[in-house]
Amino acid sequence: MQPTKILLDESEMPRQYYNIAADFPTPAAPPLGPDGKPITPEMLAPVFPMNLIELEMSTQRWIDIPEEVLGIYKMWRPSPLVRAFGLEKVLGTPARIYYKNESLSPAGSHKPNAAVPQAYYNKLAGMTRITTETGAGQWGGALAFSCALLGLECKVYMVRVSFDQKPFRRLMMEAWGAQCVASPSTDTRAGRQMLQDNPDTPGSLGGAISEAIEDAVSDPTGRTRYSLGSVLNHVLLFQTVIGLEAKQQLAKAGEKKVDKVIGCVGGGSNFAGIAFPFLLDKMNGADMEIIPVEPSSCPTMTRAPFGYDHGDLAEMTPLLAMHSLGHKFVPPPIHAGGLRYHGVAPQVSHAINLGLLSPRAVDQLEVYDAGVAFARSEGIIPAPESCHAIAAAIQEAEKAKEEGVERVILFNLSGHGLMDLNGYDRYFRGELMNYPLPEEEMARSIASLGKYPKPAMA
Amino acid sequence: MQPTKILLDESEMPRQYYNIAADFPTPAAPPLGPDGKPITPEMLAPVFPMNLIELEMSTQRWIDIPEEVLGIYKMWRPSPLVRAFGLEKVLGTPARIYYKNESLSPAGSHKPNAAVPQAYYNKLAGMTRITTETGAGQWGGALAFSCALLGLECKVYMVRVSFDQKPFRRLMMEAWGAQCVASPSTDTRAGRQMLQDNPDTPGSLGGAISEAIEDAVSDPTGRTRYSLGSVLNHVLLFQTVIGLEAKQQLAKAGEKKVDKVIGCVGGGSNFAGIAFPFLLDKMNGADMEIIPVEPSSCPTMTRAPFGYDHGDLAEMTPLLAMHSLGHKFVPPPIHAGGLRYHGVAPQVSHAINLGLLSPRAVDQLEVYDAGVAFARSEGIIPAPESCHAIAAAIQEAEKAKEEGVERVILFNLSGHGLMDLNGYDRYFRGELMNYPLPEEEMARSIASLGKYPKPAMA
Repeated sequence: MQPTKILLDESEMPRQYYNIAADFPTPAAPPLGPDGKPITPEMLAPVFPMNLIELEMSTQRWIDIPEEVLGIYKMWRPSPLVRAFGLEKVLGTPARIYYKNESLSPAGSHKPNAAVPQAYYNKLAGMTRITTETGAGQWGGALAFSCALLGLECKVYMVRVSFDQKPFRRLMMEAWGAQCVASPSTDTRAGRQMLQDNPDTPGSLGGAISEAIEDAVSDPTGRTRYSLGSVLNHVLLFQTVIGLEAKQQLAKAGEKKVDKVIGCVGGGSNFAGIAFPFLLDKMNGADMEIIPVEPSSCPTMTRAPFGYDHGDLAEMTPLLAMHSLGHKFVPPPIHAGGLRYHGVAPQVSHAINLGLLSPRAVDQLEVYDAGVAFARSEGIIPAPESCHAIAAAIQEAEKAKEEGVERVILFNLSGHGLMDLNGYDRYFRGELMNYPLPEEEMARSIASLGKYPKPAMA
Repeated sequence: MQPTKILLDESEMPRQYYNIAADFPTPAAPPLGPDGKPITPEMLAPVFPMNLIELEMSTQRWIDIPEEVLGIYKMWRPSPLVRAFGLEKVLGTPARIYYKNESLSPAGSHKPNAAVPQAYYNKLAGMTRITTETGAGQWGGALAFSCALLGLECKVYMVRVSFDQKPFRRLMMEAWGAQCVASPSTDTRAGRQMLQDNPDTPGSLGGAISEAIEDAVSDPTGRTRYSLGSVLNHVLLFQTVIGLEAKQQLAKAGEKKVDKVIGCVGGGSNFAGIAFPFLLDKMNGADMEIIPVEPSSCPTMTRAPFGYDHGDLAEMTPLLAMHSLGHKFVPPPIHAGGLRYHGVAPQVSHAINLGLLSPRAVDQLEVYDAGVAFARSEGIIPAPESCHAIAAAIQEAEKAKEEGVERVILFNLSGHGLMDLNGYDRYFRGELMNYPLPEEEMARSIASLGKYPKPAMA
């Protein structure tokens, strides 16, 4: 019998990231600055170090992974590819289901794949301190972990409502030596203004981004930069180690082709990480379906138009060409906090426009049904975000059963759910619901994007 | 440079457990029944399945690991042996420090190593349901996980104060399909009595054991048994996969000898797991120090006499020959809940009496100093229990530095601390303290053991 885990030796680890910008048949529309023109590297220099800006704009196909980053990756990489025999048995499917287990990093998710090189490149550029924002705390934790190992200071502005309600992820950051403050804070002009306007505000991701950027750009030593956990090209690039490993592992398992590649999408980084290396094969003619999965409560890919929009509520980022529900749209309070983002990474949007992806939306109850089935058959309690990918994988396995065909299904298990058990609690109590979409609010939010320029459609 | 992680292939996994009862120069004193005579297998049969009772009493050196158990172990085993380069650098020590990372199981600790075979042997014996007690929830979670994968029902009586204060571990059990109730419960006669006596009781481990045993023995179908997470010989036996793997891995790393083997001790199972395979070498003449580490607030090995005592507060277990503070002793409320046990596994006690171990006690503040140093240098946030082993490893590394000698130090990282961050919170706030031992209460508790028979001293 085939082994459950398909492992790679450290010597087989990918030595280069895959940059999909080299292979798109047409380039993605560029981000625009406040003047309506494509942004230049210089405009971003106060926010990011130049070496990361170069990667953000690079069209070189393969980017070397620095040795020091490889050394840290080896703490949890290569991650196992797992044949889901238990889940297959429960489903009675002829499909062969595999998942890439990204929950084994010390932060519990795929996020350190990108946080480690971001910290590394900042250090290489002479920076000594990084600021960032975090919502539920996944990204802040991953960056704190990375800064601890690379000897950088780290300051995380955590949305106040999460800071108060989710002390565990804040405590992870502190255990790794980062400073974590509730946003709005009194540490920045933007934060003080927000507190003056509304002393009892629960905070917002947009507000926390404003604080983190202000903190970075106003450091008089010039040694502080800002870091973002998804959406941007260089963040997606760093996650491609997932898919590059998975390709080698499927070959080791004797699989000559993969039929379905599945990942959940919030900003898009874990999805791109597993999917882009396979997308290269698809662009070269391989027959496969690549499925980004989103919550039906935040349907950027399946319902939103493609256009220019800001990446943040506070309108501090450049305009990004992406499918967006509008940066002021507030999605229903589903438990998969990492998927409540109004837009999607421009490179994922571009691939959708090119007809290369088959986006899918799933409801919250189906998502938890899938998560519980997975926990009981495969033994790992998945993060609510990852449950979206599991739900789509189960749909595909059941389709294969109905059609009576063998198929190879691969999905990304982006993280474990040990810090997110409240959603499971509500599910077991029968308190969980599928939220109806606020259609009118969504339409208004989308209509508000009319004022921005229109990007070319691929 | 040597790799950070030393891995084994699945094909190199141990196929047999190591049973130290075969190699002790004199046998450990047997458990005694209510009649003061050594217990017989038949007396235990209503509580445990006969195949586990046979293993409990076995003196066969090597015990085959069942294929189905191996299959489940492969989810997270072989676990990595990690060279702690980061910690070594911070300490500036010439010692080479290695740790076995048992935090990668889906339950986050070493506990599933024993829970999986316990569930398996129960299933093999025709049982369909297992009961157990749990304090903070580590063991209950591991058993729930194991029962999910083996298709058994599982009911966990969780001490009420933890049930209320630590909902996350309860939710893990529910995600894996176990039934978890607060103890005392109304589900058993013992529980109802406890509630009648004291409706507001916070519960106790002793009370929860009473309920779990009553539940098991009173099932009219005879298909329910009880399971314990540490202390007993067969539980220690199942954990020896840790040390057996570690021996192979140290050899792979090119280490010809190991100087210090370290593990934390509550009941003793993770310590025995890493130490007993090395203890075999020590009994055969190898020069090494084996160090079980306990909290100075619960100093069973370093302060308590060796004698007969019950394993539980409710006096339902046989009398066990062990170092004990008395089964009614209530240790100070340190955060390492898994180490607040009044006794220690009889086989660990026996090894102490034979002069084979060098027990050590460490204070809570030093424990958290060590945990934070480890998190920031090695990237993993350790469980407070595991921090005890880290503290002793750091002591040894510093001694090697003072003496200017290279030494090989191995310790067991028994679990991660992601579900136990409250202790870190109090540490960072400066609220954590070293508890003075309640000397008078301890003396009284120890004196109360005078009524029990005296075992022979090895």
